[in-house]
Order: sequence, then structure tokens, then C-alpha cells
Amino acid sequence: MHIAILTGGGDCPGLNAVIRAVSLALIQQCGARVSGVERGFLGLIEQRLRPLALTDVRDILAQGGTILGTHNRCDPFHYFAEGGVDVSARVLDFVRAQGIDALVAIGGDGTMAIAEQFSRLGLPVVGVPKTIDNDLYLTERSFGFDSAVAVVSEALDRLETTARSHGRVMIAETMGRHAGWIALEGGLAGGADAILLPELPYRLEAVIEHCRRRTEGGGHALICVAEGAHAQAQSQVVRALLSDSPDPVRLGGIGAVLAQQLQQALGARGEVEVRSTLLGHVQRGGTPTAFDRVLATQFGWAAAQLVREGRFGRMVALQGAEFTSVALAEVAGRNRLVPLDHPLLQAARGLGICLGQ
Amino acid sequence: MHIAILTGGGDCPGLNAVIRAVSLALIQQCGARVSGVERGFLGLIEQRLRPLALTDVRDILAQGGTILGTHNRCDPFHYFAEGGVDVSARVLDFVRAQGIDALVAIGGDGTMAIAEQFSRLGLPVVGVPKTIDNDLYLTERSFGFDSAVAVVSEALDRLETTARSHGRVMIAETMGRHAGWIALEGGLAGGADAILLPELPYRLEAVIEHCRRRTEGGGHALICVAEGAHAQAQSQVVRALLSDSPDPVRLGGIGAVLAQQLQQALGARGEVEVRSTLLGHVQRGGTPTAFDRVLATQFGWAAAQLVREGRFGRMVALQGAEFTSVALAEVAGRNRLVPLDHPLLQAARGLGICLGQ
Amino acid sequence: MHIAILTGGGDCPGLNAVIRAVSLALIQQCGARVSGVERGFLGLIEQRLRPLALTDVRDILAQGGTILGTHNRCDPFHYFAEGGVDVSARVLDFVRAQGIDALVAIGGDGTMAIAEQFSRLGLPVVGVPKTIDNDLYLTERSFGFDSAVAVVSEALDRLETTARSHGRVMIAETMGRHAGWIALEGGLAGGADAILLPELPYRLEAVIEHCRRRTEGGGHALICVAEGAHAQAQSQVVRALLSDSPDPVRLGGIGAVLAQQLQQALGARGEVEVRSTLLGHVQRGGTPTAFDRVLATQFGWAAAQLVREGRFGRMVALQGAEFTSVALAEVAGRNRLVPLDHPLLQAARGLGICLGQ
Amino acid sequence: MHIAILTGGGDCPGLNAVIRAVSLALIQQCGARVSGVERGFLGLIEQRLRPLALTDVRDILAQGGTILGTHNRCDPFHYFAEGGVDVSARVLDFVRAQGIDALVAIGGDGTMAIAEQFSRLGLPVVGVPKTIDNDLYLTERSFGFDSAVAVVSEALDRLETTARSHGRVMIAETMGRHAGWIALEGGLAGGADAILLPELPYRLEAVIEHCRRRTEGGGHALICVAEGAHAQAQSQVVRALLSDSPDPVRLGGIGAVLAQQLQQALGARGEVEVRSTLLGHVQRGGTPTAFDRVLATQFGWAAAQLVREGRFGRMVALQGAEFTSVALAEVAGRNRLVPLDHPLLQAARGLGICLGQ
Repeated sequence: MHIAILTGGGDCPGLNAVIRAVSLALIQQCGARVSGVERGFLGLIEQRLRPLALTDVRDILAQGGTILGTHNRCDPFHYFAEGGVDVSARVLDFVRAQGIDALVAIGGDGTMAIAEQFSRLGLPVVGVPKTIDNDLYLTERSFGFDSAVAVVSEALDRLETTARSHGRVMIAETMGRHAGWIALEGGLAGGADAILLPELPYRLEAVIEHCRRRTEGGGHALICVAEGAHAQAQSQVVRALLSDSPDPVRLGGIGAVLAQQLQQALGARGEVEVRSTLLGHVQRGGTPTAFDRVLATQFGWAAAQLVREGRFGRMVALQGAEFTSVALAEVAGRNRLVPLDHPLLQAARGLGICLGQ
Repeated sequence: MHIAILTGGGDCPGLNAVIRAVSLALIQQCGARVSGVERGFLGLIEQRLRPLALTDVRDILAQGGTILGTHNRCDPFHYFAEGGVDVSARVLDFVRAQGIDALVAIGGDGTMAIAEQFSRLGLPVVGVPKTIDNDLYLTERSFGFDSAVAVVSEALDRLETTARSHGRVMIAETMGRHAGWIALEGGLAGGADAILLPELPYRLEAVIEHCRRRTEGGGHALICVAEGAHAQAQSQVVRALLSDSPDPVRLGGIGAVLAQQLQQALGARGEVEVRSTLLGHVQRGGTPTAFDRVLATQFGWAAAQLVREGRFGRMVALQGAEFTSVALAEVAGRNRLVPLDHPLLQAARGLGICLGQ
Repeated sequence: MHIAILTGGGDCPGLNAVIRAVSLALIQQCGARVSGVERGFLGLIEQRLRPLALTDVRDILAQGGTILGTHNRCDPFHYFAEGGVDVSARVLDFVRAQGIDALVAIGGDGTMAIAEQFSRLGLPVVGVPKTIDNDLYLTERSFGFDSAVAVVSEALDRLETTARSHGRVMIAETMGRHAGWIALEGGLAGGADAILLPELPYRLEAVIEHCRRRTEGGGHALICVAEGAHAQAQSQVVRALLSDSPDPVRLGGIGAVLAQQLQQALGARGEVEVRSTLLGHVQRGGTPTAFDRVLATQFGWAAAQLVREGRFGRMVALQGAEFTSVALAEVAGRNRLVPLDHPLLQAARGLGICLGQ
Repeated sequence: MHIAILTGGGDCPGLNAVIRAVSLALIQQCGARVSGVERGFLGLIEQRLRPLALTDVRDILAQGGTILGTHNRCDPFHYFAEGGVDVSARVLDFVRAQGIDALVAIGGDGTMAIAEQFSRLGLPVVGVPKTIDNDLYLTERSFGFDSAVAVVSEALDRLETTARSHGRVMIAETMGRHAGWIALEGGLAGGADAILLPELPYRLEAVIEHCRRRTEGGGHALICVAEGAHAQAQSQVVRALLSDSPDPVRLGGIGAVLAQQLQQALGARGEVEVRSTLLGHVQRGGTPTAFDRVLATQFGWAAAQLVREGRFGRMVALQGAEFTSVALAEVAGRNRLVPLDHPLLQAARGLGICLGQ
């Protein structure tokens, strides 16, 4: 049995733990031959395979990123380097020529969408959900998310000491263009006084009023805002500028915008300073947390079992506390946003955390 | 409404996050008056209450341990300081005299057992499960566990570099006298080559053989062993000595015993050295992980809701991905061991990790 | 003996360790009465003192920021809140009225300049150098610097995994408007391929060429750039905009500018993506490193000895490996830049790290 | 030019940073050919060399341990595997046969002693000091020490939360059989109430009395004790047992002994529990701190310069804030203990930390 593994989309802590688990399981359980595809689907187009032996994968558990490399924008059905043509047939020929019996594709919704198309063309594929944002459909938790939340939480711990020492409002902008999971759990873990999510357009007045109360008498406030959050009033134009800004120099993120607005509103009271920090790429790099290492190992193990059982066209998923699988067709290109009645939102409200309402 | 909160048993990362969530919720939602009981049930006997205002609890989320203090061995139904007499009546009088409408008891199975007795005597009690060992009955995950696993995982990362540099066998002994959850998840997260649990008595020969293979040609091995693990052959006597050793100077833990045995067995091959480290109390102290901060906050919030709804004699629990509650009578004094068919055990075996079988 | 302690300027890890050491030493050695001044010199103007007892300071060693609070822009000789008038006489009256025998002022060059003016007016002052940037004159290392370097180093570790996985150029912009110490040591510790400092205006071509070589064949590059770094060509105008930008939304930092320039230059090669992260305020918050805790404790102890010996008008300093003191007049308002012949620069060059030359 | 590098003695964070710096410098500055010797001097006996190219060393900066492997007890002048005979001549023949122009030996006093003997036999050697314990003669700071201190400090932070929650005395036993540097700086950084060093035999009564005062009224105490510390009264026999215990199962370390003694002394007061944790091997493994990465890089760079200048028979050293070198003959086999008049000891005393006197 010859199995190929690829990692697609943005990098994420835990990818190597999945590669390791899939390889260790299939090599030791089935004596499979395992190959790694370099740089995601690009490696299938450019025909770059690399053999993965026990010694190649045994010690990569703690390494961040992916030893196989990845690529953000490569879709064999619209290959950018050749003007968007469909090179999937070429890919399939290559896969067959290599005698590959199954492909394990680790990635986000984009990767799952491509995997699903290949699956329909007869390629035996098993998907493994990967998303820092924890917004993949039909799986409750994906590896990398806990690591991102840990980075946000630690950053808030640091910002809190500055906020307290200066009686300031400190803002941390997290990842999450469409889904606010990182800002929600990171904000709760970091003790944020206000948490702003894309799913809940905020009233600027509510945020200002909350910060005013918190900073009275030399107090301070900590705000955790997701990249894709926006004010109710905020025009589509501004939102587009903010969330798809092509030019980082021109325009900071929503955190910087909010900092300006709050500074103007609270400026009258002289004392209060407002500062914003864009956490950026540190949220997705580095070694995975222990939690993510175990979770990624379980996903990899579950994927290997699907391969053994020949159950293709499916993605492993965590539902409740159970590892199961769902059809790729069900998840491809779909997102999981924070539901407005989510228990964590109720808890946050009940604890007096401002959600901008 | 006057609510009292106490923390019982060993300290644990996340206790303050629960105290904070319970207090913030009840003060802000119900305008409740909240009192903290000092040093667990001892505080109810010695009548030591402390008012908890918003400002007392707002910033304790990241603090390890418990601001209320705790006590390991205090049972009002057998009060050690008075020769084991029952002082529960005195406690009930005090509680009524203070006009306490409900008691939120945060602790392990011992604390839940006492809480359940008080509940039967008419005291309105809500329990919050707390155990580093993650072995409380009917709840799938308890706060503090993720933090302990993170400490074990980081320790294994450190020990791995020494093992690799010297071609050694390094052993890390974790907490877990009866349940092996910490060793299991910590060992998986830290990339252990062998994981030994109380639930799975090991064959010494299997462990020796595994280490021999791993260390051949200058290789190394990492073993994660739970405090309560033991060899199949091991006599009750030795086990008793090991697990209940009254005298730390006389006898090291199972890790030290195993180190001696492996050193003798692998000693013939000259090169291989075996070293053991007892991780000890660092596993239970310090700031909670982001995961535990969120989990503890959810438990605290859930407990506050039970109080609001007047649903007493119950303990909040996490089942599947859902927060619910169970009757104290169901959990009191019962443990949750690692089931022999647990998916993590299957995965560990499949990845070639030695479980001593 | 009545001693007052204040912390001025930006917050910094280790401030509490100094407050603790000064207080513990003077209370226990001299039975002194110690008062904390709230929010730096503002507290002397607004007459906000707080008694500091052993129990207040014993456990603050690990806390980031300052328990006394601080203020960035308050100068009693030009008091902003009263239109820049000189209120120093009022401050001196207050200090005498309180029977304060000596003031320990912990802060950066601004704070030392004010302290020196008060010293000339007869106030017994001892200064303790504080600067994240490590750019204080006549002292080789100041607390907070090691903590900031640790944050930068950890961030580079994280960014490296993303850079490697994507074959990207990742840029981290650090603090350091005038002095590049943080970028230099942080970059060396984090394994940066290029380090750009304010003291060494860089040739853009050199940086582009270095990144081109590093990224050939799917390689990656890591750049650590100080906030105040600039290209040789860069006009005063652009530099002014960058380094004193009043509007964070309008203009990112030099890292964002450099990212654009590199993206354009390397864009032709299609594959290579360039990303920038502005580390921001996380560099100055949080618990101090062990190194900074010891260093800050030594500075505080040394300051207490100056007070005991009645040697006022001086600032404690670290020269070579020795703790000594220098006259405030010598250091007030002077900076310590990275000398162009510094051994670390020679080493960096010798190791093939691009300094932009 | 052909240069060989070896790492001897126990592993230590920063070894790879030295290997990297030496290699990068000599390859890029002199076009040297660099070989790594596997497992310390054993590799010279077993003739195991490995070529080190830029790509082999560029990314090892953050890795703990040594990529070359090391060996604790291998002395070519008394080769254990051949009954202690002198195989140095064989080693010299091998070195010459390989055309090795210089050997860079990274290690502690044992390694330096062997290097010095080889130097006298005409082998061009440059030494780089390595010791977790920071006790090498004539150099003020060695890499690995800051990392060990950081581990101790973090462990004390964790133990403090348990001590506080239970009103306990918590003891942490650190490395340091002869020199107490780790316990001294680690204890100061971790806020220990008592610090016990090998250089300062303690009076048990003084420690008991200090803990009694600290724990009165539910207080707690934190003790940091070096492995080699001992009571003034303690007989040579007990000390030998403790410090050279052949059998970890039989006898715990001094921390466990002290815990028993304190428990007996404070036991009368019922409430107070005493617990001890032996930090063990986690102190020497794992990724180096940023400080150690920079320091190790500087040492490696300095060693490369000695090689370039042909200044052999010397060890690089840090004196004051300056990197210099000393003759191997001066340092071989000599230790640097904590002097009884060291400023840190004075500071500790002045801050009210018990040193057992």
C-alpha cells in the first residue's frame, strides 16, 4: 500500500503531529509505504514527492509548521501559474503513475473543497481538518486553535500589566476574519473586559461607555477584538477596506481604528491613553500546545484508520468528545461561525464582559 | 442572597477562575452577597469567612492555587483536630447564623462526598469538580488537568534533549496514583516511547525489550510512568511501599525503581545510562493554561446558574461537549479510571508506543 | 527614616522587583518607613502617597509592570495639566511636609533628568535606571531588556516555522526608536537572517539580495528590524513619518514598509511571499525573566545602600560585572546607542547575518 | 583548513548555538572544512567524524542538547572501555591522519583538563567553557546557566501557589553538588524565603526558626536548596550518602532529608505540612533562553577567532563584560565556588532571605 500525505493552506501548529501519526500508524500497522507531497497541491502538480520513513517522522511531534511545506493559493482545478487552467487530469495521471492508493489531505475548507473534487474524480482521499480559526464545519475543535488561543491569552497577560501600570485601555487584535472563536476563547482566557467578534457587530457607544466605567479612577481596560469585527454603523466600504486591505502600510486593522475612536472619545478625560497591538502571525507559528499535540495525534490516527478501512471521500471529525468522520461533500467550503446563543457568549455576558451590545 | 464559596482538597490551576466566575455571575446577575470560606471545610468549622467583592475577584483569573486557601484532610464529619468527632451540626448552625443561602463547594471526590452529606442534612450545596488527575466520575474533563499535562509535556521536551545527547533512557514519573490520565496524555504530548499506567500493570520484560530496541546504535528512549503504575509481577507489598510510602527519603517512586531495573538490564551494553525524574508538585502549581482558564470559567458560570435555579445537591459536569449537572450522590467518592479500550490507548499502541504489554 | 519610591516613564518588567528590594532592604536594615508615590511624578504633584509594608512588597517579585502605577509625560518643571508651568516648588513643599528623607526614582533618561533637577534643588534623590531599550548612558544592562529580548526571540521562533512552511520572508519589527539593542540581541537569539538597526542605515538592495539568496529553491528568511531603522536613501520626511507617526491607522511601521518593498522586489519570482509583524506592546509587559528579576533585585539593593550611605544625586549602574553608581548629572537625558564596532555586530557579520550594508 | 568540533560532559542548553557559531564563522570567514566529532572524546577514539556544512548548522540555534552527542565519562588518557589504558596516541594519529588543523572542545572542567593534556602533546586546541553550574574557573558566566536558573525560577513560581494555598513549606532541590550558583540565582529569581548552598553549611535551627516565623498564622515558606548543601552538624557519612548516593531508591536528596527534619520540627503545630521536589534533569534540557543563545553565540564566535589567529591551548572566557581567553592550564580541573562575600549573598541577607546562618 502506497499512501501520500499533503498539507494545504496556511501553516498551523500540529500539522507535523498529524503527519507523524498517520505515517507511524500506516507503516507499523500495514507496512505501508508513505510519501510526503511537498508544498500542498503544488507538489502534486510539480510532481514533488518525498519518502517518509519512521525515522523521518518519529521526532517531529513538537515542531511547528509542516515539514512538507504548504501553499496558500494552489488549486489544481484553477492553476494560477498557468493562468487558471484545470490541471487536475495531469495530477491524477501522476498519482496513478506513482501507484498511490490513497491521499491524506490535511487542510482547511479550501483544501477540503479541492480534495472533494478529486474524490469525485475517483481519487481515494481522506481529509483531516486544519484551521487555526476553529471554524471548520461539523468538527467541534481543530488542532492549532488551542495553540492560537494560548498565544492570545499570554499576550493579554502581558498587555494587562501595561494597562494596569498606566491606567490605559489596551487593545489586542486577533485572527478571525469571519469567525470569532480565537478572540472569544483567547479573550476569556486572557481576562479581557470586552470581546468583539465578527458575528456580533458592536455599538461603538457601548464599547466607549464600558471603557469609560472601567478606566474611572485610574482603572484600566483590556479589549480583545477579532480581525473581522466591525461596528454596526460601519459601512460596507470601511469594512471592505479593513478586512481585505491590500496595503498594510495604508491601513491598520480594526484594532487601530478602534484605538483612534476610543482615544477621541476618552481623550476628553485627559489621563486615559489607548493603545492597540496587532498580534499577527505569531498566532499561527511555533510548537503546538500539549492539547493540540494530543488532538492532532488523534486526528492523524483516525485518518489512518479510515485509510485502512478504505472509507474514502470522508474527513475525520470531532463531535462531542468522539472522533468520527463526515463526507467531504458536507464540509467543503462551509464555515462554522460562533452561534449567537453559544454558551460561551452567555457566560461572557453574565460575567459582565462587554460584547459591544 | 448570600452565597458562600469554598475550595477543598489539593490546590489546582483554575480554582481562582472558578471563584471569579461564580462571584462575578452571582453578584452581577442577582446582586448576591458572596463570602469566601478560608481553607476549605476547616473555615466552616473555625468560622473564617471573607467577603468577596467584584474588585477582589476580577483579576485573579491567571493566578494559580486558590485565594481562599484549602485543606487536604479536613472532614467536619470526622474532625481530626478533635479526635475525629462529628462537628457537622456546629457547621450547620454557623451557616444558618450567617444567613448563607447556598454553598458552592469546589473540590475532588473527597470534597464532593462531604458536600453530599451536608446536602442530605439540608444544606443547599452546588459542587464543582476539581481534580488534576481528571479522574472524577461522570465528568469528562476537569480544569487543572490540561495544565498538569502541559507541565509533563514540557518536561518530556526537556528530557528528550538530554536523552538524545547522551543516548540515554530518561524516565519521567508523573502524578496519578490510581488513574493514569496525566501520564497518558502527557506522555502522548511529550512524545514518550513508553507510557506506563496504574490501569495496565506492565511486563518489565516488555519495557526492557522496547528500550533495548530504541537505544540500539546510540538511540535513546523516553518513558512516562504514572506514580501508581506497577509491574504485573510486583508484589502487593512493594506496591504498597511505593504508592503509600510514608517516608520519601527511604524510597523513591516507581520511576526510580524502574530506572534501577532498566539500568541493570541494559547495563550489560555499557553505553546506555538510565535516569529518572520525579516531576512532583510542579505539576499542580502555577498559572492555568488558556484551556483551563476557559474551562474553569465555564464550570463556575454553570455552578452559578444552578444556584440561581435553586438546583441543589448537584455537581456541574462536562459530558460530551456539553455542560450539564449530576447528583452529588452519584459521584461522591467514585473514580474514573482509564478504560482498557480507550481510543487513546488504541492510538498509542497503533503508533508503536510501549504500554508494557 | 522616611523613604519615598516612585516609578516613572513607560512600564517595564522588573519595576516591582526593584520596589520590593528597596523596601525590604530599608525596612529590615534601617527600620525605615517606606511610602510609594502613585503614577510617577504625577503622584508628587497630586500628593498621592501609599505606605509600603513588608507584606505589600514581599510577593510582587514576579509581577510585571509597577504596583505604584506610572506616567509617561509628567514633568513637574513643565506640568502639562497646568499649561506647562513649573510646579516643582509645590512638590518640594509636599516632600518636606511629609518628612521624606530621600526619594528613590526608578525610570529612564527622562525620569533621571527630572530627578537630577530636583537633586540640584536640594532633594536627596537616588536613581535606578530603567529602560526596555537598554540605551541608558553609563550602565551596561538595565532590567526589562532581557525580558523584551526573550519576547522577540520567542516571536522569531514562531515566525520561523511559518517562514519555513511557506518559503516566505517573515519580518518582525521590534521596539527601538533610536537604539537597536533589542533588535540586535533579539535577532541574534531568534536566528534572524537579517538585522536592521537605527544606528546602521541599510541599503535596500543589500537586504533584497540577501533575501533573494535565502529564498532560492524554496528557502525562507527571517528579518528582525528595529522600529527606528531606515534605509540610507530614506528621506527625512519618510523617516519622520515612520518614527513619529501620529496616526497608526494611516501608516504601519518600517516593517510594513520593508515588506512592501521586498514583496515588489521578490514578487517577480512569484512564489515568495513577504509578511510583517509589529510586535508592539507585548515586548514590555508580563512577568520578568529570571535574569531580570535578579538584576532588578540587585539594582534595588544597590539603591538602598546608596540611601543608607547618604550618597544622593547618584544613579546605580552596572559597569563590567560590577554594581556601582554615577552622578545623575552625567546620565540625565543621554542615550547609549549600539557602537558601530560593537563585538556583537562583528559577530553578526562574521556569522553571515545581513546588517544591510 | 580542517576544524573538528566536539562536545564533552553533560549536555547543556546552548551547545548547538556554539557549534553553529563556530561553524558559520570558520566556513564563511575562512572557507574552512568543519567536522563534528560524535559523542565527545569517545568519537575521537572510535573515529566517528561527521561533516558539518552550513545547512547542517544554520537552524540548530534553538535546539537543546548537542547534535553531536556527548559522553560523560570518556577520558582517552584513561579509557574505561579498555580498562583505563591511555589511548591518546591513537587519538593523535587519527587526528593527524584526518588532517585536522585544530580541535574546538566544548565542555566543563573535565573536558578542559583532557583538552589541556592534548594541547601539551601538540594538538592545536581551543576550549569553550560549558557548565550548567556556572562554576568554571576564570569565566564569569557560562551558557546553560541562565536556562537552568530560568527552570528553577519557574518551578518556584509554581510551588509558591501550592505553598500559599495550603500554608505549606515547599522545598525545591536544585543542581549544584559543589557550587551553589543555580540555587542562589534561581532562588533569588523565584522569591525563595530561604536559600541553602554547599558553600554555606546551614544551622538546621536557623532554617526551622525562619520557617516557623514565615508559616505563623497560615503563612507559607519557599526553600531553594542546592543538591550539595548540608547542615553544619551533618556528618561526613550522611553527606557522602547524600551527595554520592549510588542508589536513588534508597535515599532521596538533601531536599527530602530537610523536609523530614522540618516536618518533625514544625509538626507540633499540626497545620504545617512540608513537601520537597527534586527538580532533576529538567534543569539541563530544553531550548536555551534568549540570553544563553546570545552568550553561546558569542563564545562560539570568540573561539573561531582564536582558531583564525592560531592562538591554541586557550579557552575563551567572559571577564567583566568582555570576551577574552585564558590558558587551558589555568582552568583545567578547577572550580569557581560562590565566595562568602559575594554581593548576591549580601543582598540576599539584606532582603531577609535565610541563608541558614
